[in-house]
Amino acid sequence: MDLFPRIDAALREAVRLAQGPDGETPQRLAAALDHATMSGGARVRPTILLSVALACGDDRPGLSDAAAAALELIHCASLVHDDLPAFDNADLRRGKPSVHRAYGEPVAILAGDSLIVLAFEVLARAGIIAPDRGLRLVCNLAQRTGMPGGICAGQGWESEPLVNLGAYHRAKTGSLFVAATQMGAIAAGQEPEPWEELGARIGEAFQVADDLKDALLTEAETGKPAGQDAVHGRPNAVALMGVQGAVRHLKDILGGAIASIPACPGEARLAGMVRAYAERMTPVNLGAQAARATGAK
Amino acid sequence: MDLFPRIDAALREAVRLAQGPDGETPQRLAAALDHATMSGGARVRPTILLSVALACGDDRPGLSDAAAAALELIHCASLVHDDLPAFDNADLRRGKPSVHRAYGEPVAILAGDSLIVLAFEVLARAGIIAPDRGLRLVCNLAQRTGMPGGICAGQGWESEPLVNLGAYHRAKTGSLFVAATQMGAIAAGQEPEPWEELGARIGEAFQVADDLKDALLTEAETGKPAGQDAVHGRPNAVALMGVQGAVRHLKDILGGAIASIPACPGEARLAGMVRAYAERMTPVNLGAQAARATGAK
Repeated sequence: MDLFPRIDAALREAVRLAQGPDGETPQRLAAALDHATMSGGARVRPTILLSVALACGDDRPGLSDAAAAALELIHCASLVHDDLPAFDNADLRRGKPSVHRAYGEPVAILAGDSLIVLAFEVLARAGIIAPDRGLRLVCNLAQRTGMPGGICAGQGWESEPLVNLGAYHRAKTGSLFVAATQMGAIAAGQEPEPWEELGARIGEAFQVADDLKDALLTEAETGKPAGQDAVHGRPNAVALMGVQGAVRHLKDILGGAIASIPACPGEARLAGMVRAYAERMTPVNLGAQAARATGAK
Repeated sequence: MDLFPRIDAALREAVRLAQGPDGETPQRLAAALDHATMSGGARVRPTILLSVALACGDDRPGLSDAAAAALELIHCASLVHDDLPAFDNADLRRGKPSVHRAYGEPVAILAGDSLIVLAFEVLARAGIIAPDRGLRLVCNLAQRTGMPGGICAGQGWESEPLVNLGAYHRAKTGSLFVAATQMGAIAAGQEPEPWEELGARIGEAFQVADDLKDALLTEAETGKPAGQDAVHGRPNAVALMGVQGAVRHLKDILGGAIASIPACPGEARLAGMVRAYAERMTPVNLGAQAARATGAK
């Protein structure tokens, strides 16, 4: 099933909540919220969230939709703030001007703040139909977003003199994938703990796939400068274990991810989704380039 | 009753939640959270919140404490982001270096983000004892913080070519005072609507008192440059109605605030609190300077 229309509708409804009538609300900030959330994006995290909710029976689809929208809002907020001059100073995001390039830095800071707040408002509104689940969703999303272990903490490690690499990757990349699997379970009335490993392993797989792409693909293929890990001497899977080693490691992680799926009605379908992501993560050209890079060694 | 120790304890407990163990969490960001929340501050908003909760019976003091802490966390987050170079570019806050001067801009942006997230986590954790109230607190705080009508919207008006002054002041100054009275009521199990007017009027009173201070007090007395409204030609109560007119207006607003207090067990005590704030807002020297300024006219 294509979950994209469901995610898109939930996200549009959420953003509309934050946009008051002309004259009663600052319109440039309102437009920036659209720009930040509606400029493409693979919607990976909410797709995983809804897939887990469906695997668990999805008995409160309104709540799952809200959780999917809230998670994507947090992801979009993090991209807006990460692009700011104080961090990556990125002019482009998904081929369009970054929010601060389009609307200025003050509006970009406020857009990120507003999207974070909106994520929790969306959960609180939808949570009324099942308040216990609603509050647990708020709590889970907050823990995966803020300090001491969420994406804010992940970004915060980049301002430290000494970095705990494991904690850094878990917080920066892993935390929103763990939120995806756990929030999907919570929205469908299940306990979140058994779903942590699946989220963590998908997060690790994304990290290794990113390292491979950085090493193997060109700027034209990825839309961002290539070979940056090697240039900046950043620790990454390709430097540690070579291209073939990293590809093998990626397959192991994804195998582990599938093995970790808790027993549930939709177990088989969910395993299929993880396999589909695995194929997307190692696309044909990436595989071919890996073979070439290995042959050249 | 002095509510300060109660607020201080709740706020410290909240910030501790966000600070993981050494080596497992970025310590500069963790220190910035302390810096942003523990550097003094009158705690006006949480004091109003707890006063309303007490007036309504305060049958869930743990929830009221969490609401008070959450509201102050949002206020502190807004100060950290407002001080950034993209906004006020302030070097000092309450006589100490602003967060970005002490820890750099990346950590300051992340500290603001983390404090916003923490506010909602604190509500979600405490809300478990009364999930309906917990969710309503999350929803109310989000509406008063984000878009289209919260403090983010208020700040956002400053990037608009045309400003709706009423909407601007309601969002920028009023919204967290409305949150204070309404969250106090919700935490104690009461409906929030009857409490909106009290919050709105206290917010207005703070705005007029600020205008008076800007016009009448020296930099040494307020800790910030004096006469800025006149210098920048900003619309303000003193320019509109003169010093004596503004003082009369302030008294009218506070009278209206007291009259608006809904019938509740602690009505009389709450009126006493508003009167005490009124006296603080028009301190002896401000009154004397108003008389002098009027005499000189």
